[in-house]
Amino acid sequence: MRAKLITQSSFPYREDNPGIYYATLKNYHTFKIQGIDGVLGYIPTTLVQSISWPEEYWTVDTAQRELRMTPRSNTLSSRNNIIEDAIRRIAEQGSPEILKGWRNERFPVYGPEGTVVVEIERSASAQFGIVTSGVQMLCFVEDEGGSIHLWIGKRSEKKQTYPGMLDCTAAGALSVGESPRSAMVLEATDEASLDTEMIEKHMRSVGHISYFHVKSSTSTGNKTLSTALLLPETEYLYELKLDQHTVPRPKDSEVEDFRLWSVDQVLDALKNGMFKPNSAVVVIDFFIRHGIITPETEAKYLEIIQRLHRRLPFPVAHRIPKNVD
Amino acid sequence: MRAKLITQSSFPYREDNPGIYYATLKNYHTFKIQGIDGVLGYIPTTLVQSISWPEEYWTVDTAQRELRMTPRSNTLSSRNNIIEDAIRRIAEQGSPEILKGWRNERFPVYGPEGTVVVEIERSASAQFGIVTSGVQMLCFVEDEGGSIHLWIGKRSEKKQTYPGMLDCTAAGALSVGESPRSAMVLEATDEASLDTEMIEKHMRSVGHISYFHVKSSTSTGNKTLSTALLLPETEYLYELKLDQHTVPRPKDSEVEDFRLWSVDQVLDALKNGMFKPNSAVVVIDFFIRHGIITPETEAKYLEIIQRLHRRLPFPVAHRIPKNVD
Repeated sequence: MRAKLITQSSFPYREDNPGIYYATLKNYHTFKIQGIDGVLGYIPTTLVQSISWPEEYWTVDTAQRELRMTPRSNTLSSRNNIIEDAIRRIAEQGSPEILKGWRNERFPVYGPEGTVVVEIERSASAQFGIVTSGVQMLCFVEDEGGSIHLWIGKRSEKKQTYPGMLDCTAAGALSVGESPRSAMVLEATDEASLDTEMIEKHMRSVGHISYFHVKSSTSTGNKTLSTALLLPETEYLYELKLDQHTVPRPKDSEVEDFRLWSVDQVLDALKNGMFKPNSAVVVIDFFIRHGIITPETEAKYLEIIQRLHRRLPFPVAHRIPKNVD
Repeated sequence: MRAKLITQSSFPYREDNPGIYYATLKNYHTFKIQGIDGVLGYIPTTLVQSISWPEEYWTVDTAQRELRMTPRSNTLSSRNNIIEDAIRRIAEQGSPEILKGWRNERFPVYGPEGTVVVEIERSASAQFGIVTSGVQMLCFVEDEGGSIHLWIGKRSEKKQTYPGMLDCTAAGALSVGESPRSAMVLEATDEASLDTEMIEKHMRSVGHISYFHVKSSTSTGNKTLSTALLLPETEYLYELKLDQHTVPRPKDSEVEDFRLWSVDQVLDALKNGMFKPNSAVVVIDFFIRHGIITPETEAKYLEIIQRLHRRLPFPVAHRIPKNVD
């Protein structure tokens, strides 16, 4: 299991080895917006250099390795227009999968105040290295002896990403304006054909994980880190205990089937790399919360838990007004 | 709730503000051992300067702000002897509470390989700023409507630390050689008079939290950070669902009483600062796992979860031989 997890989190920690950390970052430009503090993402330098950035809206600082948006008007829509224009140029210059995957679904990018400062089309979010968020749910059953069995989905062999790999029971991305809970209810209804009212009544919010996913560039197939995309990801986690008569069923063509797996079967599948990476981490967190992975059974228990909750060097959402307390 | 949590975690993050981070560390010496990579703890410089460090066993590097043990013999027992000698001098020179609290209970200090490199008497662990570990358990009851009630302990008014404050149902420190699970079973038997067999059958390991606790020096009462002790803490977490007839009862004089609190009562007590700080964080983690604190109810949801899982800049335990996987 450990090997898989480290693949997931292979973006170096500065405090462990500053040399490797800075050497890695040398291959990226930071993505910033004039007037907004902080770095919003990392873009491969090769990608920055592959298109032109109109001086009217962008400053490329090669020495500082910084790509800075300089909008004339300080509104969300003007920032969105500038970024959409850039995305279309990136797509035309060698990343056609962006247009192919275009969903008219935008991811929010948060500033240091926790508010949305720009929105980026989902299929191009990876290129800008922004934090993306998703929701994931595991449905499970407890047998008479108290043993847990999980409803594991198998992705269709025809899916563009991770065909045939294993998944949680339901999952989805969190677009602009969606609340994690309602997005999760919708996905569970859509993907697993579960009854909405039952989900709303029994689904439990159980936490949140965050990590860096390092993905070799899909357009070039080049596996070296210099063109890898840095994907800081966060996932809101849910679980839903089902009775023994409720069976999730695929509704669309994304999932091939759902099967009820024993804990040992799931552990074996994890070890054999059969899970999609960002589903594997959700299963690991479930096993930690349910006393299946424990300090007595896993030597790297502390390290795994800390890596599942990496503090990302970017602003994240503050979803509601600050409490007065 | 937020204010409490930030008090707990008020040791600055380097990546947020390097200036404040380095300014804080200027008041500390790092604690190192010759031949072992990495920093093992932070000791207030005022404390380093308050006693003598025999040149035979120690090097004090004022420029690098480093206190380095230089044992002649490379054995655990020789390192333990050197540190015990230093602890006695610290106690005699102005920290009498170390001798008063002496328990002949030692905390393990781990090296980068995850093995124990030195052991430090519990009552002096704070002075060396080493990582300490504990176990904590919350017992709870689910009523007919599915609502959760927690068994909360009230500390005796006569306790030396945090008298009269609220606690989890059972908790304890993890000394050299103890496994988290068996330590937790022992504490729950001892502190809450619960049946050992029942605990072993139903107690569930549910995760782990880690954070910096910044504590103003107890000996001087000085609240400035220059003499505050930096306590990196980790807690192994457990929960135990009780039926409505099982009632925890104090066995020793440490706990005044146990009462069954509703979730709202506990939330109010958290907001009012009635919990001992390192018990408060355990309750918050419980509420996150049980869907009581959610992204929809808490604006700082992501930040709270990341702060509860701080990656400490010190080696931590690897408890069993590395798995072959």
